[in-house]
Amino acid sequence: MGHMINIGVIGYGYWGPNLVRNFMDLPGVQVRTVSDFKPELLAKAQSRYPTIQVTTNCKDIFADPKIDAVAIATPVSTHFDLALAALQAGKHVLVEKPMAVSSEQAMRLIEEAQKRKLVLMVDHTFVYTGAVRKMRELITTSVIGDIYYYDSVRVNLGLFQHDVNVIWDLAVHDLSIMDYLLARQPYAVSATGINHIPGEPENIAYLTLFFESNLIAHIHVNWLAPVKVRRTLIGGSQKMIVYDDLEPSEKVKIYDKGITVNSKNSESVYQMLIGYRAGDMWSPHLDMTEALRTEGLHFIRCIEQGERPITDGEAGLRVVRILEAATQSVKRQGRLVELDLERVAA
Amino acid sequence: MGHMINIGVIGYGYWGPNLVRNFMDLPGVQVRTVSDFKPELLAKAQSRYPTIQVTTNCKDIFADPKIDAVAIATPVSTHFDLALAALQAGKHVLVEKPMAVSSEQAMRLIEEAQKRKLVLMVDHTFVYTGAVRKMRELITTSVIGDIYYYDSVRVNLGLFQHDVNVIWDLAVHDLSIMDYLLARQPYAVSATGINHIPGEPENIAYLTLFFESNLIAHIHVNWLAPVKVRRTLIGGSQKMIVYDDLEPSEKVKIYDKGITVNSKNSESVYQMLIGYRAGDMWSPHLDMTEALRTEGLHFIRCIEQGERPITDGEAGLRVVRILEAATQSVKRQGRLVELDLERVAA
Amino acid sequence: MGHMINIGVIGYGYWGPNLVRNFMDLPGVQVRTVSDFKPELLAKAQSRYPTIQVTTNCKDIFADPKIDAVAIATPVSTHFDLALAALQAGKHVLVEKPMAVSSEQAMRLIEEAQKRKLVLMVDHTFVYTGAVRKMRELITTSVIGDIYYYDSVRVNLGLFQHDVNVIWDLAVHDLSIMDYLLARQPYAVSATGINHIPGEPENIAYLTLFFESNLIAHIHVNWLAPVKVRRTLIGGSQKMIVYDDLEPSEKVKIYDKGITVNSKNSESVYQMLIGYRAGDMWSPHLDMTEALRTEGLHFIRCIEQGERPITDGEAGLRVVRILEAATQSVKRQGRLVELDLERVAA
Amino acid sequence: MGHMINIGVIGYGYWGPNLVRNFMDLPGVQVRTVSDFKPELLAKAQSRYPTIQVTTNCKDIFADPKIDAVAIATPVSTHFDLALAALQAGKHVLVEKPMAVSSEQAMRLIEEAQKRKLVLMVDHTFVYTGAVRKMRELITTSVIGDIYYYDSVRVNLGLFQHDVNVIWDLAVHDLSIMDYLLARQPYAVSATGINHIPGEPENIAYLTLFFESNLIAHIHVNWLAPVKVRRTLIGGSQKMIVYDDLEPSEKVKIYDKGITVNSKNSESVYQMLIGYRAGDMWSPHLDMTEALRTEGLHFIRCIEQGERPITDGEAGLRVVRILEAATQSVKRQGRLVELDLERVAA
Repeated sequence: MGHMINIGVIGYGYWGPNLVRNFMDLPGVQVRTVSDFKPELLAKAQSRYPTIQVTTNCKDIFADPKIDAVAIATPVSTHFDLALAALQAGKHVLVEKPMAVSSEQAMRLIEEAQKRKLVLMVDHTFVYTGAVRKMRELITTSVIGDIYYYDSVRVNLGLFQHDVNVIWDLAVHDLSIMDYLLARQPYAVSATGINHIPGEPENIAYLTLFFESNLIAHIHVNWLAPVKVRRTLIGGSQKMIVYDDLEPSEKVKIYDKGITVNSKNSESVYQMLIGYRAGDMWSPHLDMTEALRTEGLHFIRCIEQGERPITDGEAGLRVVRILEAATQSVKRQGRLVELDLERVAA
Repeated sequence: MGHMINIGVIGYGYWGPNLVRNFMDLPGVQVRTVSDFKPELLAKAQSRYPTIQVTTNCKDIFADPKIDAVAIATPVSTHFDLALAALQAGKHVLVEKPMAVSSEQAMRLIEEAQKRKLVLMVDHTFVYTGAVRKMRELITTSVIGDIYYYDSVRVNLGLFQHDVNVIWDLAVHDLSIMDYLLARQPYAVSATGINHIPGEPENIAYLTLFFESNLIAHIHVNWLAPVKVRRTLIGGSQKMIVYDDLEPSEKVKIYDKGITVNSKNSESVYQMLIGYRAGDMWSPHLDMTEALRTEGLHFIRCIEQGERPITDGEAGLRVVRILEAATQSVKRQGRLVELDLERVAA
Repeated sequence: MGHMINIGVIGYGYWGPNLVRNFMDLPGVQVRTVSDFKPELLAKAQSRYPTIQVTTNCKDIFADPKIDAVAIATPVSTHFDLALAALQAGKHVLVEKPMAVSSEQAMRLIEEAQKRKLVLMVDHTFVYTGAVRKMRELITTSVIGDIYYYDSVRVNLGLFQHDVNVIWDLAVHDLSIMDYLLARQPYAVSATGINHIPGEPENIAYLTLFFESNLIAHIHVNWLAPVKVRRTLIGGSQKMIVYDDLEPSEKVKIYDKGITVNSKNSESVYQMLIGYRAGDMWSPHLDMTEALRTEGLHFIRCIEQGERPITDGEAGLRVVRILEAATQSVKRQGRLVELDLERVAA
Repeated sequence: MGHMINIGVIGYGYWGPNLVRNFMDLPGVQVRTVSDFKPELLAKAQSRYPTIQVTTNCKDIFADPKIDAVAIATPVSTHFDLALAALQAGKHVLVEKPMAVSSEQAMRLIEEAQKRKLVLMVDHTFVYTGAVRKMRELITTSVIGDIYYYDSVRVNLGLFQHDVNVIWDLAVHDLSIMDYLLARQPYAVSATGINHIPGEPENIAYLTLFFESNLIAHIHVNWLAPVKVRRTLIGGSQKMIVYDDLEPSEKVKIYDKGITVNSKNSESVYQMLIGYRAGDMWSPHLDMTEALRTEGLHFIRCIEQGERPITDGEAGLRVVRILEAATQSVKRQGRLVELDLERVAA
């Protein structure tokens, strides 16, 4: 390549400053413009990074021919319009999760990016952490064996959102991690939940995801918990994982535990002999690079090399489809909602 | 009263020895006879307690006029026949949980006990622990406020049962604790689960219980987990509880945390102002008396004073109804199964 | 007052940026100049705070009549010369801990500040945390009772210092916290330690501090530990405290535990009847304000109101005396080194 | 061999029942007689084990020609007289730790056992746990590398002893574990401590042990702590160990952490370049056999095969010498007390 990649960042609220900081640290990359509705946020950006241009009108970013790519860190309801406009202006796009408020919107963005041969990447940040990448390695190299279940708890006190329920706010993390780790799609969802504030979205939800194989997944999300928990159990035929994101260092523990089934037991045709295996535990050292740095490097590489991002528009769409289905199921108190696998795979 | 209460214990496998040991320690109580199919278990009982009679035929217990009460610690499929026979022989009954394999059986036992004015008690052991009794006190004295949710995780590696699924084996504990703590009945259940060994019962299950009030409950049970977890979160409008039964001493922690909702906010008709409150945490000292001793004393008192047990046949029936409904829902992948509240209340 | 307090900060390595950031956030305060030997660090300061002047010559700070106060965040060997020069230039001084490399130096600084009626404050940061202030409150209001012992462990892997041993690097924190909490001085020290790298300072040390009253203190510091520990036990006649600074929220736990001694036992003249008391545990909500902000406000207030800082030069001197004595004792394998209490009190 | 080994157990208070239970479970072994001053304890023994003879006079055990070996679980002040009498009666001896109240007594017992070619074993129980045996294996196979330090904390609330201080009660465990793991003797001790009840022995103590090599050891024991801690850090040149005996399963964790020292750094003759290494953590599966069973099997094997026990009289003596020296040092506030290595080695 050789030329500097110029980025425009839309939204400088909670997440935008992290995007700007990481892009500014990457070699061969600079943030050219930051836009936000709030002038006071732009003032903070300018004071911190005197070389960056700021604007309250994001169209300035789309119109700037020097800008190669746009990162969107705004409320989810605005993702579609902003990402579409960026793509139509010929910019590569990195959009916050969830990618859009509906699978229709997500598909429209994928289509637009494909047509224009632009990179469309979704900011599924956890996928780029050392912990998740290590687990992916353990799964793809068959250390874990067949995956039996994926169980995640993501609870804490606050922040209650007004526009989306707790599934769109918190379960989206687990769904994006699962999408990357399992490389398989659920065919249906059963979800339950409750809102404790009248008129507000659900603040507690439980999702069960059904897969064709011998696999089940469950996600528990809650904005009203007395303690913060970020804990995932992954059961496999060879090993089992406990992934605790709140541990300062040993986030991933691999247990050489499981069952052995002896089906050749002739004494009884009705019953399996089950044995229990308990061996060593092992916690691999993890790459502690900030996920957003790894992700930023990947985004730049995809732009420069024309590669497909790990968390591309399709990944974003798969996650949005499950969010939609889960929200439907919650409204119907756990009624199974099927996911159209062909459309997902298409 | 004055006279010694004589107990017959049926079943001397895993739990029977605990029943015998505790009854033998109570003042005014003695275990007169222990029965079991396996002579080697009876030999152990006799060596440990030379004064106790043993038999491989439980009818010897029913036929013994000196025996006042029978404790049944056998596989669940035998509970009904043994408890019915004991009641028909005029004995008070303490039966292991779950009380029976169906609500029909449970109702028949209740009816028989009522007719004969005998005590019918179900061994919901956790109800008699210091931790659960303390939580009940906190809830009934309004320290916790309105209960918003009850969320329990009870997972470990093994023991896989062949005759009942993980709901009947593990969730029964949570349901019996909830029945005591909440003093309210769910109107419906949505449950999901999976069996990882073909032909065997479900080894993982997730239950959501719906209540008429602003309350939801969820139970996660698993025989195939790499770590042992026994953790319950209870969210209330005033306080929130974390109950971790594996903690050696501070099993119950009460958090002065929660949300405050300001609905008088005139700026917006659509949106609540939510505030977050984080105050002290407090862990009360707990009575560490062995639950089975407290329970044994209660059983004896109910016999002597004609009182109704806390965990009476009705409590056993309420739990069995939910176990039945949850198992049905699992078969239908989360389909809502309603509980006939009138029958439950009747 | 009315006028803006101008600060000069000397040293912009590890700690200096925290000082600058916090002073810049305080109302009525501004950092006017930052000095450091390394131009690249000054470039970072200037990029972050365009309004601040930078210089590689700290004499520019002393010579600037607009500067009211100087904060010194340089290696300990330079503290004395810089602080003395600042005081002689009529500036108030906030100096990093440990205050100086010897008690002679510390006393000279105290004298100079007194003569010139300037504020001399030592940056014993932990004293200004919510956790330590809460413990001080619990101790001064007699909640804890008579203090029986103070035991602290402060270990981790790295960073090995070349100019000072682990006592001057890590135990200084515990000594400054103790100085504030106990409001009493030890009369002697016995310390042991070892250096695992030939020619380098001790990387492990154990300090026992003896007090006139029924109190003992012990500090364990280690640069070569596999895990990070920051845990203090404080035993009192009424309550006992566990202070774990690595806990995200419940850093301070108060245990209603202890012993009761019945000395009126007439049966035996030789032996006390000891009872054990185990009650509730309680973890108070803590003020989570950054310690350096609280400390900065206190420094400014002392300048404006002519008040004496909590962590004044005398506090810095008391800590340095113990550091000196402990280092002497380590050289002599635990030999008791007495602290000259009169000189300390003087 | 062929013939049944007959054991006499003296003392049926806290530890005696564990000895009896374990010996009764061993193949080829039986407990023939139990003696205790208290008839009510003997009644418990007889009810539990109807085949065992009981006596209030321990001389009956010494006089019984059918008894091969005697296990002594009485207060430490009685160990010498009982063990000597047992040896003089030609019995093999297993004696509780600490072996005796003085090294003179310990040496006399060793001499007597040698003269009579009898097994003299000290019940250093922890040496026979799966955790300690695994650590020994890791150390002897050079996995850990050179040992840099051994640091142990053993604190809890109670039980205050009246006849021995906390060193003889609790540090004896750490000293016996260290004796086995390090296979090296300290040349001197510096210890400090305090008694909070007038006239009673020290209830808190800190011991530093000095070794000829680049090794230091420290033990912290306390009867007046709000929480129970049983945690040992072992630092080595290759790996570091955290041994937490309160963990239900992962008691031993091995950290691939440490420092690398580059002394060839030509830039500076005064200073080492220190690098930090942080790799995986690993927790080996441990043999969970009850330590006393493993120890009982070892005792029987030593009797039958004429082998020397791992925890022989010499091991008991080495531990007692350190207990003596530490107690002397405490009285002199940390003054170094040298251990006569030649006498120890003799």
